[in-house]
Amino acid sequence: MKAVGFKTSLPISEEESFIEFETAKPQPSGHELLVKISAISVNPVDFKIRQNSAKGTVLDTPKIIGWDAAGVVEAVGENVSLFSVGDKVYYAGDITKPGSNSEYQLIDERIVGKQPSTLADEAAAAMPLTVLTAWEIFFDRMRLSAERDQNKTLLIIGGAGGVGSIAIQIAKKVLGLKVIATASRPETIEWCQKMGADVVVNHRNLVEEVRGAGFQFVDFIVDFVDNNGYWDAMAELIKPQGHIASITGSAVPVALNKLKSKSVSFSWEFMYTRSTYQTDDMIEQHHILNRVAQLLDEGVLFHTHTHTLHGLSAETLKQAHAQLESGTTIGKWVIKY
Amino acid sequence: MKAVGFKTSLPISEEESFIEFETAKPQPSGHELLVKISAISVNPVDFKIRQNSAKGTVLDTPKIIGWDAAGVVEAVGENVSLFSVGDKVYYAGDITKPGSNSEYQLIDERIVGKQPSTLADEAAAAMPLTVLTAWEIFFDRMRLSAERDQNKTLLIIGGAGGVGSIAIQIAKKVLGLKVIATASRPETIEWCQKMGADVVVNHRNLVEEVRGAGFQFVDFIVDFVDNNGYWDAMAELIKPQGHIASITGSAVPVALNKLKSKSVSFSWEFMYTRSTYQTDDMIEQHHILNRVAQLLDEGVLFHTHTHTLHGLSAETLKQAHAQLESGTTIGKWVIKY
Repeated sequence: MKAVGFKTSLPISEEESFIEFETAKPQPSGHELLVKISAISVNPVDFKIRQNSAKGTVLDTPKIIGWDAAGVVEAVGENVSLFSVGDKVYYAGDITKPGSNSEYQLIDERIVGKQPSTLADEAAAAMPLTVLTAWEIFFDRMRLSAERDQNKTLLIIGGAGGVGSIAIQIAKKVLGLKVIATASRPETIEWCQKMGADVVVNHRNLVEEVRGAGFQFVDFIVDFVDNNGYWDAMAELIKPQGHIASITGSAVPVALNKLKSKSVSFSWEFMYTRSTYQTDDMIEQHHILNRVAQLLDEGVLFHTHTHTLHGLSAETLKQAHAQLESGTTIGKWVIKY
Repeated sequence: MKAVGFKTSLPISEEESFIEFETAKPQPSGHELLVKISAISVNPVDFKIRQNSAKGTVLDTPKIIGWDAAGVVEAVGENVSLFSVGDKVYYAGDITKPGSNSEYQLIDERIVGKQPSTLADEAAAAMPLTVLTAWEIFFDRMRLSAERDQNKTLLIIGGAGGVGSIAIQIAKKVLGLKVIATASRPETIEWCQKMGADVVVNHRNLVEEVRGAGFQFVDFIVDFVDNNGYWDAMAELIKPQGHIASITGSAVPVALNKLKSKSVSFSWEFMYTRSTYQTDDMIEQHHILNRVAQLLDEGVLFHTHTHTLHGLSAETLKQAHAQLESGTTIGKWVIKY
């Protein structure tokens, strides 16, 4: 089968930052599905791994990355019970395994969902990683519920990106929160409004911006941009007893004590925790993807796919990574095979 | 009325570390109750405030601290609706206001509970601060529920102290968790077992101790001893998707990133957040104290009072603080007026 990967970590502008190659089509066993991929999407985790996982070294065989995908089940392992050959599926995969930048891929059925029936393959491929991230933040990390939390306020730092776009929608439509999102350009401001944000503020001078919009404190904050950089602003803006979550990591130690007098909680969300640690509840990702497929089919949520590149190739992956690395992407970029 | 306080922060061994004085009996207004105090208990927050709040200065009038109390309502403000004159009450107070180390005290009715009817005044006075701390950690910060979390594992660092003692009980009896508590002396080990701990381990070499007891990871950790000191051990022991909470503060910045790959959450609990910030939900402390009074009266929970000193005086307060500062106290020390 055809695949795209890399043997060494290079800037995306370099000729060999991605290379095309042939490799054996894998065979499923156990809980694995063999999926014939129809479309993939790119996420920041992709370029972080491309930039760092083979730094200063040359791998013997190219590494296949990229994890969001939509496709069709072509074969199943002997323990598979959730899917059958011919099912259309979508998933965000497992970063400890080979990725989706190839014609076929093996994937554990417990982290796979039924593809939304009303969405084109490219729109379906745009969703899984961001859906799982936002859903896990709200329901598994923060343990929010519409019953307990509706009408409370949520600040989303980075509203127009992939995760921000679906997080705004889930917060509004599923939880009934009042959503303040950050965006700074006319097109990203408009996009956040389209996603359902009640208020859009500039990320610069964040404290003044949020307070200027009429919010002294907010109940919840999610950071999709820079945990260290926004730490002091988040500590200032969070309401007593509030909850902050982040997906971005903190390169330097954090003044955690700034949250103490307010009894604030903080959660990390890393969408690959369940598959990496093979947690007892990893099948929750199957349930989340199915639940969101239903919400997409019912029109409660809508897809965040904004741009399509055509064909699995080193060239399309270079274009997609270069765009994502620019930090200006709105919604999700997809490669349709 | 008689009161005990201090004009300057001194070591507890100094003559003037506490002084007795007379001051005007206060008058209630608004939501305030005037309570005639029958017993008080001491908590670490008391000596931390005594040691630090008047460091290098001499106050014009002595500062009255101490916040746990049991007593009888003697008069009420014009907006009081939850209590009447003659009601027996218990509460942990508000650190922004004068404390309970006096004959009478004003207290906002929304943070006061009905005294458990089956408990002596001194046993009732032992409970409020620790009850509110443990309850808020489990239900408001971690958002645990018996339905969702029973049989999961909880590590309590510091099981034999005031908060640890009631936290073990609430975790076992109300939430159905499996509880591992730390204690190192024969008498504290026995006490933790009496509180209901399933397993007691030594806090030294904590990772090895917990793993030696058969737990590779634990779902939840609460720290009542030293957040900075146990950070690395907690990061190692916490289960993927687990939750850590602490009441102790962190003097130095924290390597928060150590929790990221596991998608771990962290909560601060400070029992005085609600009263300090006058949060919309401060009446929750009234509900928590009433709920726990019922659980104490039903025998589901039992009091943690272990030692009584007699009479409100500088001498009894010095004894109580000296004991608490030693770091070896089991359960709760009380002063009966």
